[in-house]
Amino acid sequence: MAVSPAMAQTPQNPDFERLVRESFEKQQVMGTLGARLTRIAPGEVDIELPYREALTQQHGFLHAGVVTAVLDSTCGYAAFSLMPPGAGVLSVEFKVNLLAPAKGDLLIARGRVLRAGRTISVCQADGIMRSGTDETPVATMLATMMTVTGRSDVVR
Amino acid sequence: MAVSPAMAQTPQNPDFERLVRESFEKQQVMGTLGARLTRIAPGEVDIELPYREALTQQHGFLHAGVVTAVLDSTCGYAAFSLMPPGAGVLSVEFKVNLLAPAKGDLLIARGRVLRAGRTISVCQADGIMRSGTDETPVATMLATMMTVTGRSDVVR
Amino acid sequence: MAVSPAMAQTPQNPDFERLVRESFEKQQVMGTLGARLTRIAPGEVDIELPYREALTQQHGFLHAGVVTAVLDSTCGYAAFSLMPPGAGVLSVEFKVNLLAPAKGDLLIARGRVLRAGRTISVCQADGIMRSGTDETPVATMLATMMTVTGRSDVVR
Amino acid sequence: MAVSPAMAQTPQNPDFERLVRESFEKQQVMGTLGARLTRIAPGEVDIELPYREALTQQHGFLHAGVVTAVLDSTCGYAAFSLMPPGAGVLSVEFKVNLLAPAKGDLLIARGRVLRAGRTISVCQADGIMRSGTDETPVATMLATMMTVTGRSDVVR
Repeated sequence: MAVSPAMAQTPQNPDFERLVRESFEKQQVMGTLGARLTRIAPGEVDIELPYREALTQQHGFLHAGVVTAVLDSTCGYAAFSLMPPGAGVLSVEFKVNLLAPAKGDLLIARGRVLRAGRTISVCQADGIMRSGTDETPVATMLATMMTVTGRSDVVR
Repeated sequence: MAVSPAMAQTPQNPDFERLVRESFEKQQVMGTLGARLTRIAPGEVDIELPYREALTQQHGFLHAGVVTAVLDSTCGYAAFSLMPPGAGVLSVEFKVNLLAPAKGDLLIARGRVLRAGRTISVCQADGIMRSGTDETPVATMLATMMTVTGRSDVVR
Repeated sequence: MAVSPAMAQTPQNPDFERLVRESFEKQQVMGTLGARLTRIAPGEVDIELPYREALTQQHGFLHAGVVTAVLDSTCGYAAFSLMPPGAGVLSVEFKVNLLAPAKGDLLIARGRVLRAGRTISVCQADGIMRSGTDETPVATMLATMMTVTGRSDVVR
Repeated sequence: MAVSPAMAQTPQNPDFERLVRESFEKQQVMGTLGARLTRIAPGEVDIELPYREALTQQHGFLHAGVVTAVLDSTCGYAAFSLMPPGAGVLSVEFKVNLLAPAKGDLLIARGRVLRAGRTISVCQADGIMRSGTDETPVATMLATMMTVTGRSDVVR
């Protein structure tokens, strides 16, 4: 038995999908990278990023920081989707293991909430590189997200 | 007493500075982000990144993935600077704690090797945000880097 | 799709089960804590630890270091079970998120290999606390293990 | 410039030293392991653990989980020393890099607060193994601690 995200995650905010979408639109770096929000469910968010040479490290793989940016946003929004109205989300910390070189056509990142707490949410995300019909796991993240309320600089 | 990077780090490759510089030039994402390599010493590398709205998350702070990209490159090149001729470097994993919102004029990232092993190097990096004359620590990374030899897809 | 350990993990050493068992017996701390090796499969190892007050932190929960010790051993042996004959295993690093207070009757730790490489294996482990018929996830680990060969101080 | 713990850390609770000492006494696992609290200062705590075979892994080194237990307690109490009266401390997560085999006479663990926040504190700890007059860094931890108030099961 794994710590499973399969348990029914009940959103506290019926409007969560719209809020995630609006917040993602405000993450200017996602546009700069070329990332797309492809799926929103309670406690689960997917983001995809087409491979581009402009995003690579010295061997032509997607830079670990680029992969991390996308994984972090899936975790943050997965956590945010379960937060109460009026809350904002901040990344407290994350750890990423790189599993294979991120080379291929498309990075698919899937984030989900392992445990949603009042203040702290623990999330997990996987990064898979699609190349034609092949899919290779390239990274996995374990992250801690924080529910922020009452701070004017951190809203949604 | 802290685990100190102050111990004399002796480069195995006298040409390390040129190799770090050449490899950094190949990291296309650094150009895309606007990052500059500002200091290379044996086991220590600094990179700076001017704040730009195109790199922000939803609250207008530099996205944690962007901060991570820069910290990761300082760690990777700090480790690489101590590697033998012919080696390449890959990030095995890293963990980042976000300490404060990354808002200001300039992100200064300082990476250093804590322990340089034959295969595995452990590195640490700090991210500081400069705003006028103020400097605020915004992130800290603890990372594992790997010396790679004999792989044609991973050279320098 | 998650990064799945479900892919068939093929042991390189047909004798893996005996070797894991023998090595576990040599981990004197497991006896000191009262931990039992309860399952060995290729790339997967379970260890159980009955709750005892002698292992607690200040609030009467199992100390995070005790939970970590057990999770780390499941990861190390999960990785070791897939290593070639003659190899030894060392923990490079791990990260643990504590999900809930570890109070109850029995800690069940389940480790598995996410990616088995020649030198580096990435593993994941979950810690579940059983209390009567209830099971609560209390911790999750993401770990990096190393295959060690040719070192006389690190055998099995 | 490193993210420095050298900044004056002002305790909010003048009684912090007594409270850390009392809480440490309640951590039964510290007695079971044989650990001693050797230094308390605002935002800094040291713990020492004599090497014993009963605490070893299969190669005769202190088990990574034992090293982690001690590092985690130094981080937890370093954070706790800066918390307001009435607060309790919980480990949210930590990451440990193992730098060298933990063999020798005495493990010296030194934890300190990097950033003390209202809810979240980020801490760092180093583990050094003393063997005669030699001291070898064996582990480093980066940890997230949480200030807990108003929970009857988590006091001091």
